[in-house]
Amino acid sequence: MRIAIDAMGADAAPLPEVNGALKAAEKHRDLELILVGHEAQIKAAIGKRSLPNISVVHASEVITMSDSPMVGVRKKKDASLLVAMRMVKNGTADAIISAGNTGAVMLASRIVLRQIAGVTRMPICQLMPTSTGTCLVLDLGANVDCDARHLCDFAEMAVVYSQDVLGKMNPRVGLLNIGEEQAKGSEVAKSVHRTLSAAPHINFVGNVEPKALYRGEADVVVCDGFVGNVFLKTSEAAGSFIKTLLTREFKSTVFTMLGAFLSRRAFKRLKQTIDPNEYGGAPLLGVNGVVIIMHGATNAKGVMNGINVARTAIAHNISQHIQEGIAELRSTEAQFGDVTAGDSDAVEDID
Amino acid sequence: MRIAIDAMGADAAPLPEVNGALKAAEKHRDLELILVGHEAQIKAAIGKRSLPNISVVHASEVITMSDSPMVGVRKKKDASLLVAMRMVKNGTADAIISAGNTGAVMLASRIVLRQIAGVTRMPICQLMPTSTGTCLVLDLGANVDCDARHLCDFAEMAVVYSQDVLGKMNPRVGLLNIGEEQAKGSEVAKSVHRTLSAAPHINFVGNVEPKALYRGEADVVVCDGFVGNVFLKTSEAAGSFIKTLLTREFKSTVFTMLGAFLSRRAFKRLKQTIDPNEYGGAPLLGVNGVVIIMHGATNAKGVMNGINVARTAIAHNISQHIQEGIAELRSTEAQFGDVTAGDSDAVEDID
Repeated sequence: MRIAIDAMGADAAPLPEVNGALKAAEKHRDLELILVGHEAQIKAAIGKRSLPNISVVHASEVITMSDSPMVGVRKKKDASLLVAMRMVKNGTADAIISAGNTGAVMLASRIVLRQIAGVTRMPICQLMPTSTGTCLVLDLGANVDCDARHLCDFAEMAVVYSQDVLGKMNPRVGLLNIGEEQAKGSEVAKSVHRTLSAAPHINFVGNVEPKALYRGEADVVVCDGFVGNVFLKTSEAAGSFIKTLLTREFKSTVFTMLGAFLSRRAFKRLKQTIDPNEYGGAPLLGVNGVVIIMHGATNAKGVMNGINVARTAIAHNISQHIQEGIAELRSTEAQFGDVTAGDSDAVEDID
Repeated sequence: MRIAIDAMGADAAPLPEVNGALKAAEKHRDLELILVGHEAQIKAAIGKRSLPNISVVHASEVITMSDSPMVGVRKKKDASLLVAMRMVKNGTADAIISAGNTGAVMLASRIVLRQIAGVTRMPICQLMPTSTGTCLVLDLGANVDCDARHLCDFAEMAVVYSQDVLGKMNPRVGLLNIGEEQAKGSEVAKSVHRTLSAAPHINFVGNVEPKALYRGEADVVVCDGFVGNVFLKTSEAAGSFIKTLLTREFKSTVFTMLGAFLSRRAFKRLKQTIDPNEYGGAPLLGVNGVVIIMHGATNAKGVMNGINVARTAIAHNISQHIQEGIAELRSTEAQFGDVTAGDSDAVEDID
């Protein structure tokens, strides 16, 4: 099993990539890890720790965070990301992991690897912590303008990912919406509700509001990339805001030092609870091959977890299962009629 | 100045309405407050505290939270909400306040009072707390399917409301989006960005992400009702989730009792900081007349603040200013061309 690692993507590249790869290579001797990027820098980072199942492939360019994805992918032909991506394309690697420019990773995936036959859009998903476990949320920003079919495809692909990679059988699938009732939400949301309700192979639990998501009432929650990205970033922003208020609050009590100490400590642990490095990155679903997108601030542990996720995805032949699942969804839609038609209901309740 | 109060809307109706009205009537002798609902119940709640500038108008029916807005407004002709709404329509009142079924209040406003000439949609807005003050966010759920013109109208109306009611001159207007760059977001978002950038009378600060909103980088933030409702509910849900984690966290320390006590106390104060009762309800903008929607769980203070907000809105003739503002916006659009046209940019960055 061979995994190409874009070694130049992380903010602290190539250290997190190299250290994460070394850990994974030591643990899984069956893995063949290929670090792609500036050979000299990578070898310097490896030092004397070389392992038989780790190799380095040189790439002279790097697509940076400030590069426009379009320009970077078009102009920097020898970028570490593209060299690694082409290895998956030509079969010298089974998966790619990158902590680089997310837009560039998505664009390169679409151009070099292309979508799985039948897949309409490629979403990015991420495991979010809940009170009772985790919830796979998608799309988180790859597709901002979605119709009902796109969202149904997201649900289908997330089910396959949950079963193959997360080991969650028959996951509960919810639709992120502004009310629990079937008639709630946008025309697209209502249409998705109808289709997923009618899909026999999807365990659809209906509309899910943010509160229910955090209570752990679904294993998978789908939404378009705009809403998903707002959900993700609002969760982070509300957290920081509450931290600010609480710290002020503690400082205003007579227990100043202790209160501040306790809250700092609690928030540090909280940060660990929701640390993306624990969840092995965000897989790009629906692409030909396995693509794992890491956070730019990833550490070695994050890279190692990303490698583990890629390993599981390859082992379970996720691409094949997604293709089969999408085909099944299409036949459901065919029996059920146009998924994009929606009945109108202008008045919404904000309570 | 006469304000009709739907006295049967709150969860604890008519007590919060009656007590809030009494406080406001005592403070502002120029106000004429009309409590609309079950006369016997209202008079019992008033008891001996009657004031010359408070009167009661009987209404035999109540639209409950469980009523469908459509059915409630159509069937319950003598509902307190509709009786109060008709008083604004026929000029016996200048404003209406209700803590009842939000969908019913919006529908009744549209049917009985109608929209201001030129206004395309009527949004609900609310003041959200930020690290440095407050931010007026809209739409929060009244309009789930919006085009660029709707969002530009929201911005225009929010500017008028900020200046007339909140006393914030030349407010900084932001667009809730998934990135700061102009090219980010949905086609609608990009189109709104172009129009607001070109509107000389709007102080547009560009795209605003949730983090920037909570940092207080805008006085007004616009989005469609679906995104706004997800933002609002995710903020609440993330707050509860963090509270759960922190409480567990504190319980796990050796300081159990003290930590839990401190966090309970801090979260109680936090709740006060973001208590909707402090902000005088959510005004429905763009309607002919002043409509203030209170939270169902409102207390007397919330009702009193709602009355103060209505009082200021009437005094500043907000409807007239909104009509003028919308006309100015239309002329900007005319110079600028179609606001709904958008250029395509499929790849988004989730970092």
